[in-house]
Formats: sequence, C-alpha cells, structure tokens
Amino acid sequence: MQLPDSFYLGALDRVVERLGADGDDGLLVTHPADVAYLVGFCYAVTEHPVYLWIGADHDRFVLVPELDREYAEQQRIHAPVQTYFEYPGVTSPEEHLAGLLRRRGLGAGRIAYTSSVSVGTFDRLRAVLPEATWATSDVVAGLRLTKAPEEIELHRQAADICDSMLAAGRTYIEDAIAAAGELPREGEIARHVIGHGTDLVYQRYDRVVFTTKLAGGLVYAGPNAANPHGLPSSRRVQRGDTLILSLGAAVLSRFVESERTFVIGEPSAEQRRYFETARTAQHIGTEAMRVGRTCADVNAECLDVIRDAGFGEYLRHRQGHGIGVQNHEAPWVEDGDPTPLAAGMVLSSEPGVYVPGHGGYRISDTVLVTAEGPERLTTYPRSLEENVIAA
Amino acid sequence: MQLPDSFYLGALDRVVERLGADGDDGLLVTHPADVAYLVGFCYAVTEHPVYLWIGADHDRFVLVPELDREYAEQQRIHAPVQTYFEYPGVTSPEEHLAGLLRRRGLGAGRIAYTSSVSVGTFDRLRAVLPEATWATSDVVAGLRLTKAPEEIELHRQAADICDSMLAAGRTYIEDAIAAAGELPREGEIARHVIGHGTDLVYQRYDRVVFTTKLAGGLVYAGPNAANPHGLPSSRRVQRGDTLILSLGAAVLSRFVESERTFVIGEPSAEQRRYFETARTAQHIGTEAMRVGRTCADVNAECLDVIRDAGFGEYLRHRQGHGIGVQNHEAPWVEDGDPTPLAAGMVLSSEPGVYVPGHGGYRISDTVLVTAEGPERLTTYPRSLEENVIAA
Repeated sequence: MQLPDSFYLGALDRVVERLGADGDDGLLVTHPADVAYLVGFCYAVTEHPVYLWIGADHDRFVLVPELDREYAEQQRIHAPVQTYFEYPGVTSPEEHLAGLLRRRGLGAGRIAYTSSVSVGTFDRLRAVLPEATWATSDVVAGLRLTKAPEEIELHRQAADICDSMLAAGRTYIEDAIAAAGELPREGEIARHVIGHGTDLVYQRYDRVVFTTKLAGGLVYAGPNAANPHGLPSSRRVQRGDTLILSLGAAVLSRFVESERTFVIGEPSAEQRRYFETARTAQHIGTEAMRVGRTCADVNAECLDVIRDAGFGEYLRHRQGHGIGVQNHEAPWVEDGDPTPLAAGMVLSSEPGVYVPGHGGYRISDTVLVTAEGPERLTTYPRSLEENVIAA
Repeated sequence: MQLPDSFYLGALDRVVERLGADGDDGLLVTHPADVAYLVGFCYAVTEHPVYLWIGADHDRFVLVPELDREYAEQQRIHAPVQTYFEYPGVTSPEEHLAGLLRRRGLGAGRIAYTSSVSVGTFDRLRAVLPEATWATSDVVAGLRLTKAPEEIELHRQAADICDSMLAAGRTYIEDAIAAAGELPREGEIARHVIGHGTDLVYQRYDRVVFTTKLAGGLVYAGPNAANPHGLPSSRRVQRGDTLILSLGAAVLSRFVESERTFVIGEPSAEQRRYFETARTAQHIGTEAMRVGRTCADVNAECLDVIRDAGFGEYLRHRQGHGIGVQNHEAPWVEDGDPTPLAAGMVLSSEPGVYVPGHGGYRISDTVLVTAEGPERLTTYPRSLEENVIAA
C-alpha cells in the first residue's frame, strides 16, 4: 500500500527546490517518520540506521540494513535501495554512506540534515566525511505541517476505524453488564478495542505496514484515569467510575486519535460538573481551530474554559498537537507555539480535567483545519447523555 | 514495582565516582532507558523531554512534564521530581532545566551528557547554558553492559513468560487443527500470544510499568517468514508452512526474547536442511558465549556454520545483541564489536536462515554469560522433532 506516485514526486520536487535555494548539494534524512513521508518506506526502528539521500540533482537512494532489503523492495518505495550488512559492522553504516556519496563526487559537498539526528550519529557522519560542510534543514518539517488531499483521505479512513473502536469498547462493557457477571479489567478492554481496530485494518487493506503501530489504546477508569499517560491496569471497571477510552489508529502511518469519557451508571453531580467543563472546553477549543489563528491563541481560549470554571489546578496538559505520520508532531496547540493555523493541518483537540484520587475527563477529536472552518474527522458522540453506560 | 534501593544507590555511586574521575560537575541523562535504569522512572516517550540530573555532589532530580508528575510519584522513583508545564512551552523545558542548574551554582559548570541526545536538543541546551562546558560520557552505557543479580532475576521472570507465550502459540494452532476448521491468521496468533503474555504480567505483578512494551511478538509463516522484520499478515497459516514465533516480554523493562521455528505438518527435506543448519548455528553460537571471547569472534563462529553449509546467501543479520532495559542494546554480537564477553552480560543468540519465496528459520534464546559458561534463560524445546505441529 502506497500513496500515488504524484505525492512522493511532489514532495521530492519541493525538497529539491529548497536545496537549490539554500545552496545545499543534498539532504540526508535520518528520522523514520521523515523517511516514511518522503519515499513511503515504513520499517521497524532499531539501532540499525536508515539513511535517505536526496540530491539537489534529484538523485536519491535509501541505505538500509540487509535484513530490511526485501521488505523495502516489497513496499515498492520511491527510492533505489542500497544496503549495508549489519550494525555496528566492520565497515560502519556511516562508512557505507560516505562511500556512496563520494562515488557521486559529494565527499566535500554541502549536506543538509535534520536536527533529530543524535549527537553520536552526527559525530560519526562528520568523521567519515571530514571535508563535507553541514547545515541543519527544516524542509521536511515544513512539508509535513499541512497534509495533502491523499493523506487526508488516509486520516479519514483511520478516523473511521477509531470511531469503530470506541463503539466496540462500549459494547464490550455493556455486554458484560448485561451478562450480570464481573465487569472487565482495564487491560481486557484495551486488548479488545486494539484487537478490533487491528482486525479492521487487516480486513480493509493489503500489505499492511506501519512505523509505530496500527491501533493502540489506553484505557483507565476511576482514580487511574487521573494520570493522563497512565497504563491500563488489572483493576476491574466499577459502577460509578469515570472511564476514558483513549484510542488511536493509523492507515499507512497516517494517525488519528479519538478519546471519549464514559460514566458507568448514573453520573454524580461532581462527575457532571467535571465532564461538562471538559466537554465545553473541547467544543470551544475545536471551534477555535480556524485558519490564521495561532496555536497559542487557540490553546489559551480552550484552557481558559477550564480555568474559568475554577478547575485550573486540574490541568495537566495543553489542548493538543499535530497528527500525521507521527501521532504527535508539530504544530503544538500550546502557549509556546505561535504557528498560525493553515488549511490542511490535522490536529488533536483534547483538553483534560484530572482530579487526583477521583478520575479524569478528556474528549479528543482529530480535527482537519479547512478554509471553511474546523472539520472533526472523528465523529463518535460526545455528550454526557450519550456516553453514560447504564449499569 | 521497583528494584531494591541498593541497586539504584549503587548505580548512582558509580556514576558519581566517574564524574569525580572525569572532573565533571554532573551528568545530564536524556535517554528513557537510561532514566529507567538509574532511577526507576518508566514513562511513555513523547516529544516531552525528561531530564535526569546527577550531580558530582550526589544531588539529583528528574525534570518531567506536569502530565507525568503523579505517575512519577506513584512509581516511587529514586530522584525528587521537578516539573515543567508543557512542550514546547513559553518557557521551554530546557530553560526550566537551566534555572534548576543555575540555582545550584552550576550555570558555568562542566556537564557530562550522553551522545544519544539529538543535535536539536543539544543546541537548545547550549543556548540556555551558554557558559557551561559540555563533554559526552559513556558512563551509563558502561554500567548497563553487565547486569546486577537483581536485574538477572527479572530477566529470568521475563524468560518464564516468554516460554509460556511460545507454548500458548503452539497450543492455539494445535487447537485449530484439532477443531478441523481453518487455521488461524498470523495476526490472530500474534494477538493471542501477546495477550497471553500480557495477562501473565498483570497476574504476577502489581503496579505494572514499562518503557516500550510488556509483551510483543512477530508471527510469520511461509514466504512472509523470509523477512526478518516483516509484520504479521492476514494470511492464514497453512499445512507445509515454516512458522516463526518471535516473542518478547519484559518485567520492569528488563527484556527477554525467545523465538522458535515450527513446521506445520511433516517437514520436507528442504525444511529439515534449513532448520538443522539454523539450529546447529544457534547451538554452536550459544555455546561460544564464554567470558573473555569477543562478540566478533563468537558471531563469526556462529555464522560460519551457516556459510559452511552453503547457505551464506541466506544470511540477513548477525548472531545477536545485548538485552537489558532495552530489547536491543550493546554489546552487539557482530563482526564489528570487539567487546569481550563478561559474566553478567545478557545476550540474544539468534542466527537465521532466510530463503526468499520459501521461508525463514530462526531460533533465539536469551543467554546469560556466567563464569561457568552460557546459561540459556529461555528453555522452550529447540529440536525439529519437538517443534513439528502435527497436521
């Protein structure tokens, strides 16, 4: 499974254009998400480096470990595949790379690179190409900020899977209640919804590939839900619990996240108050995601709803973040990011209220910014009435 | 769940000793596995940096995002917790860190750091601490090379879970055969064994935490097994297939991997030949894992078995790698790593034979190097006779 050729060729043209403008001989790409974005190669990330070279002359190759050669060829990626045998290697991957560049007359070239590379790797690159000059480049980050129509279609498909996972999680709990047995454990719910999402991916697509996961999820209820990044536990869900299903899915590594807060049984006044605050903040924050407004401005409007309700002490994080080939990427919907929103950005909108010892409340949609306003790609119902699980 | 205090205090003492010897004022630790190793904090890795400071005066703290504060406190980690609100932040995490160091009189100090930090992050650190001097340090990598007895006990517990996962996978296929229905898909087998392993972790331990996963697995059969890092597919296992179950589990992020090759039905002569070659290489390579021999030497002896059998073209990777807080870590059992083996190292031994279009053969154990010789922590049967699934 790949995007159409035109997507990759367009991205490469834009990189080459920028290389020309900056006076660079080529771009060395080292981050797995950038490699997936530019040439469609998705791979398991290990200590084995993968180097993608894009020359200012449109020449390109991707250098991969031998163990990924056939896998790369099967994916029909948009760059010729070169290999090194192993890591660390008698001849290191960096020495292989230097040889490939020297054969192209680029041993003393000007090489752009992305600053996600580690200091250790960069030191090795400088050692094997001592005559090259180096300059960081944010060209790929710039391209990834807004999504092409073909990518947005993949995000829509992932959103459909996420919505289905939410419904499956709810049904799983309702079935347990109807059977009048014990309610399921958080970990059991997580496994059920992840399995449901993974099944859908395999049913719907051939040649499934991913960079980090196909479908994932955090499930936490009661006091455990007060940790935004807590793990599902072996605790059984209980009547009276607030329950967060925090789910994600990806199609060709285009991510979506969708999160809903449920209440098991009739909500208490306290649960209603926290829920409605989180819900209102999410609604106002999502509606604020309009072209030209800054990330910082949107975030402030969203989180002010929670602060104004008197729950500022229960804030633990920003409104949201960009989503694309990674499930968290720029721009950051936070006070410190002045990026103006643009059509084609895909963002999470997920303010939360976390009450230690009691529980957590978070509703998240994946939102497409369009010239006409925000479009929620995830559409599972959001109101408290629709998210009470009778028990 | 944590290791005993003495483990963390011992590690800190050794870091401080080295800082003194190197003339450094402190060590800045940024890699999640190093943080987990040194102070027992396990967390979901996102764009939010976590900084652990260990001063030459034994002073220490860990700087985490607000969303992980309670989670860190619940883990009773071995360092006081400081927080910053968000990423990227109006005041960046690095500015928070600089403030904490300046308040300790270390704004112009000599700071050791690990070279796994990204170039971008390192540039930000230098910008906020312009008077500091910086030096890379491999002190933590050195500590992690050999495992303490308390860690080895966790590896043993993880090995027991891995062995149980292998048995569960085999039983799952046998049950399908006995039921005379369709054989399961690769992805279904993967989910079953991962679920089995995850259940065991939750049954056996309180306060389950992890850095990357609890239990994981790749399952591939037939031609798909010829990709060492291929994904489980929606293809159903078939009679006549070679099947690899490549499984892993972790207890307090101490990893183990265990992999076995099965044949569904009576093996062909070709399957026998490849299997026995991989099996013999693994046996000889594992027996070679003795104190004082180098990684390169052991790897050569192991892979020579495959080359001498005439299957050198089917090699795709080295014999193995270190395993600890990460499932792949130094040392590397490969030609390019001259590290001598030492008692307390934990290594994978997993040579493989990959025949494009036909299948793959790999047997992996997690091996503890001891003064008395190699000890296999994973003990699931390895012979072909024991790994034929009657069909």
